[in-house]
Amino acid sequence: MFEAAEVGSEVPKDEYEAQLDQLRIDLVNAQYDLQRAEFPVLVILVGDDRPGVSDAVNRLNEWMDARYVRTHVFGEHTDEERGRPRNWRYWRALPGRGQLAVYTGAWVLGTLGEHLRGDIDDAGLERRLRHMERFERALADDGALVVKLWIHLPKDEFKKRVKKALKAQKSAKKNGSAGKLDELDVRIYERYDEMVPLAERVLRSTNSGAAWRIVEGTDARFRDLTVARSILSALQARLSDEAPPPAPAPAPAGPEAPSVLAGVDLEASLARPQYRKERDALQGRLRQLSRDARRHGVSSVLVFEGWDAAGKGGVIRRLTQAMDVQDYRIVPVAAPSDEELRHHYLWRFWRQLPRAGRLLIFDRSWYGRVLVERVEGLTDEAAWRRAYSEINDFEEQLIEHGMLVAKFWLHVDPEEQLRRFELREQTPYKKYKITAEDYRNRARWEDYESAVSEMVANTSTELVPWRLVSANDKRHARVEVLRAVCDGLAERIGAREGA
Amino acid sequence: MFEAAEVGSEVPKDEYEAQLDQLRIDLVNAQYDLQRAEFPVLVILVGDDRPGVSDAVNRLNEWMDARYVRTHVFGEHTDEERGRPRNWRYWRALPGRGQLAVYTGAWVLGTLGEHLRGDIDDAGLERRLRHMERFERALADDGALVVKLWIHLPKDEFKKRVKKALKAQKSAKKNGSAGKLDELDVRIYERYDEMVPLAERVLRSTNSGAAWRIVEGTDARFRDLTVARSILSALQARLSDEAPPPAPAPAPAGPEAPSVLAGVDLEASLARPQYRKERDALQGRLRQLSRDARRHGVSSVLVFEGWDAAGKGGVIRRLTQAMDVQDYRIVPVAAPSDEELRHHYLWRFWRQLPRAGRLLIFDRSWYGRVLVERVEGLTDEAAWRRAYSEINDFEEQLIEHGMLVAKFWLHVDPEEQLRRFELREQTPYKKYKITAEDYRNRARWEDYESAVSEMVANTSTELVPWRLVSANDKRHARVEVLRAVCDGLAERIGAREGA
Repeated sequence: MFEAAEVGSEVPKDEYEAQLDQLRIDLVNAQYDLQRAEFPVLVILVGDDRPGVSDAVNRLNEWMDARYVRTHVFGEHTDEERGRPRNWRYWRALPGRGQLAVYTGAWVLGTLGEHLRGDIDDAGLERRLRHMERFERALADDGALVVKLWIHLPKDEFKKRVKKALKAQKSAKKNGSAGKLDELDVRIYERYDEMVPLAERVLRSTNSGAAWRIVEGTDARFRDLTVARSILSALQARLSDEAPPPAPAPAPAGPEAPSVLAGVDLEASLARPQYRKERDALQGRLRQLSRDARRHGVSSVLVFEGWDAAGKGGVIRRLTQAMDVQDYRIVPVAAPSDEELRHHYLWRFWRQLPRAGRLLIFDRSWYGRVLVERVEGLTDEAAWRRAYSEINDFEEQLIEHGMLVAKFWLHVDPEEQLRRFELREQTPYKKYKITAEDYRNRARWEDYESAVSEMVANTSTELVPWRLVSANDKRHARVEVLRAVCDGLAERIGAREGA
Repeated sequence: MFEAAEVGSEVPKDEYEAQLDQLRIDLVNAQYDLQRAEFPVLVILVGDDRPGVSDAVNRLNEWMDARYVRTHVFGEHTDEERGRPRNWRYWRALPGRGQLAVYTGAWVLGTLGEHLRGDIDDAGLERRLRHMERFERALADDGALVVKLWIHLPKDEFKKRVKKALKAQKSAKKNGSAGKLDELDVRIYERYDEMVPLAERVLRSTNSGAAWRIVEGTDARFRDLTVARSILSALQARLSDEAPPPAPAPAPAGPEAPSVLAGVDLEASLARPQYRKERDALQGRLRQLSRDARRHGVSSVLVFEGWDAAGKGGVIRRLTQAMDVQDYRIVPVAAPSDEELRHHYLWRFWRQLPRAGRLLIFDRSWYGRVLVERVEGLTDEAAWRRAYSEINDFEEQLIEHGMLVAKFWLHVDPEEQLRRFELREQTPYKKYKITAEDYRNRARWEDYESAVSEMVANTSTELVPWRLVSANDKRHARVEVLRAVCDGLAERIGAREGA
């Protein structure tokens, strides 16, 4: 893969200068057009030639209008980052539509380093590669333009530079200027023969969406021109719509899923005395577990979906009553802000992820994509169909981080819902909960039911199964959720302790 | 101050239960009305009775609709927080208009602890108190409702609880449930006699905006009812506009400031060979300084304001050329997002603050409040007049954190501006920079000039002076800014090394 970038490509100075003016004009104009466009641009610029990458990024910032280039250098993780899934920092830094971001030192390089140091084994590497690939695909599916560039230095050139750097280091001490290569680069050079095949493997595995472009780093002029040209041409192609829009994901074949909700036993109920006893015991257990979770840094994400008036609020309250306020947070999911609309639809959930040891409750969630957005026609079919696997991948990464992820659908039948609507209209402090929209949603019961069935069929995974909670009887529902959360927490804390 | 909260106030159980239903209805209804209102609510709930505070917050979350209460428990600083000014974490968590947030363990308690431990001296305490007071006033001026509650436990009651807690701790080991008081509370009790006078001093000093309400914590029912009632009545009063809107800040007296811009020597210039020499030397120096800054964790904020076409972009580019991309970030300030509009106008700048060791360049800034927003009539006079002292206080806190803050006004005369407009219209990649708006702004030159003069008069402080840069000659301007940034950085790094 790297052979073509070891041929000593170079650009003479006069040729370089002759091209520069027009290139810069084109770059700035493309940036300007991008601001009016409806897609984000993510440039991933990495390589074995770290100083070369850094120089190329600097050059890009010089040639383009640096105010509209957001460059992210991902180095050591901060402790806020360490408390969250590995990819969280990439998620939260994503450019919005009309914006351009450059990621350097991003996931590729970190993963390589971890494998070389033996921090992750082959299986771990494969899992990472799969996540990277899916993440990039999700971005591309969302309309993002992803440009991936790897700057490669042939071994003999690398050797020359290391030598020169070691020499320069001595004189640097005299005149006070800083050298180019640092220790890490020297270490990379020393393990060059191991690193290159591994890098090839990584690049090959992540080549399916946006393809990697490998740029030889020997000659700085060639390198910088090639990097800028690659970005420019991808951007121009996309702006002029020469590039076909990403193909919609194929709709999964097969007949309509049967209603999984039909299998929920709505007769389940719990008498008040029994309820009180179980609730109190479970709340006591949850109190202790949530403190243990804090101590062990086990964080949780609970997702609540369900019919209107199915009792989500009441269930959530029975959970939070048992916890210290510092240990939980509730995110009611409403319409996205304009900043959120400019990003991938999962971005607004990514940015909420809890810090280590805390529990986050989503009152409605990313599943809105395949429920209300689908049923109301707010999102096209290809997009919500894609969401199934995007969501599975997202939740899998939370689990891999050691988090508890639990999702609940609170199920009632239409008669019980109507009874509750009417009751609410008579209760002063619940009255505002009922609007005309609730009655409208009710009229689309069947559409929602088939959306729920398909959602469960596609996203109830071994790692994060859906729990369909019988909620015609509120007491039954509350105890069932309390117990499930306790069991889930205990299991996750146990796993952490055993680790 | 605390005497009135040491009288053994209590509420009998039947009375408590008789009131509860109506209280909850009123609370939830007020929350509902708030969502449609145009102000944020910040409840600061702290006290010497830490378990009491925690219980009261839990109770609030139970009584209100917890989904719309955002509770922040501020404990240990994360390293992302440590890298920024002390109050950054309070800034970034502020509720938007129509939202309610509860801060607990917030600035008051932390500051008390630090003073008791001897981490800050009396002068340090006074500085903190002044910042708190101003911060609260800025929020109130912006329309926020701030409710401050302190839960106090008389000493004999505190003693009883400590005893009980120590006893409970032993039995707790048997049945696995967690005790209420922890070590920190016991420590607070041990230093009770020192703590109470200090707490009084803190409360007195921060009593001028929203007044503190001290709530006795002996009886839980009394405590919870009082806390909820205090919040409810403040909220209701504000909602029904019984509370007068905050008085506008008085306009400073005195005649119109003379134009400070008249004093800028626009003849200053630099010949090209001299320019090249100085630029190269300064850029070399800046390269080294920015690396030193990273190593020492010295972060910087540079603010660029100036006439259209005064050359901000060119100046910024000469700075960034000399730095590694990981060391700087440029924030071009455009129209705020809807999320930003819901917050205090400084919020969108607070959230951008750089991590330790990095340099942030604002291309236009918070000074827009007293420039374009004033001149174009986008903000009323009381609001932009208030901004002067809010900005000074904000910048002072950055300086206290050890940051470099430098602000530049790039000055050209109207003739030079026109010349540049015309030139830009002929340059392909600069053409888009000129719009009809630029010509409109030009027509209001005098209004802007007097706004600039007044801005400089009010915000050029000893800590962060304005630097008015003569920019008719671009080379002169670039070298002057490069030099000022280098000198500023060297001074700040020197101070850090000496510390």
